[in-house]
Amino acid sequence: MPDEDGHPSPEEMDLRTVLSALSDPLRYGIVAALLREPEGAARTCASFNLPVSKSTTTHHFKILREAGLVRQVDRGNSRAATLRRAELDRRFPGLLDLVGANP
Amino acid sequence: MPDEDGHPSPEEMDLRTVLSALSDPLRYGIVAALLREPEGAARTCASFNLPVSKSTTTHHFKILREAGLVRQVDRGNSRAATLRRAELDRRFPGLLDLVGANP
Repeated sequence: MPDEDGHPSPEEMDLRTVLSALSDPLRYGIVAALLREPEGAARTCASFNLPVSKSTTTHHFKILREAGLVRQVDRGNSRAATLRRAELDRRFPGLLDLVGANP
Repeated sequence: MPDEDGHPSPEEMDLRTVLSALSDPLRYGIVAALLREPEGAARTCASFNLPVSKSTTTHHFKILREAGLVRQVDRGNSRAATLRRAELDRRFPGLLDLVGANP
């Protein structure tokens, strides 16, 4: 069962769901940007300056979260996202390397 | 430039386009099934018995072809598809291995 914030465990992650999450250019760009951050870095959703409304931004992060790509953490007034890099590398070896090599 | 049948060269393949092609369950299943065939094996579109109309089947194969995942070859009265395995393994190392490991 995903946790209360909708984060699946690595065993619950589904490759097709992950690929579907990555198939959107904005979401792919978020993951590629997080890959360029130091491991474990958290960025607020607003920091990505996506060219869409706040509610659409929230929607994209929900899809990334439910696929298992990012973990959302509360930061007082805002929420920030970290890439679940180590878990993804174990569950889907090579996938994030491909994204990193194809920014 | 893709060739006259819409096949991109490996350099023209785009990871996001490939991920988008794979994000559909039927298309993912076609690629996973071709991965289980001997290298270079060609299967007709009809052989996949997809639960959709012939024109929808054609549409799915067009998306796979234009992403670079399959190569379509004429077989007299019908068309068959082969997985562009070696080219994909070079262009996106590890991607097909992930699909093979997550059927």
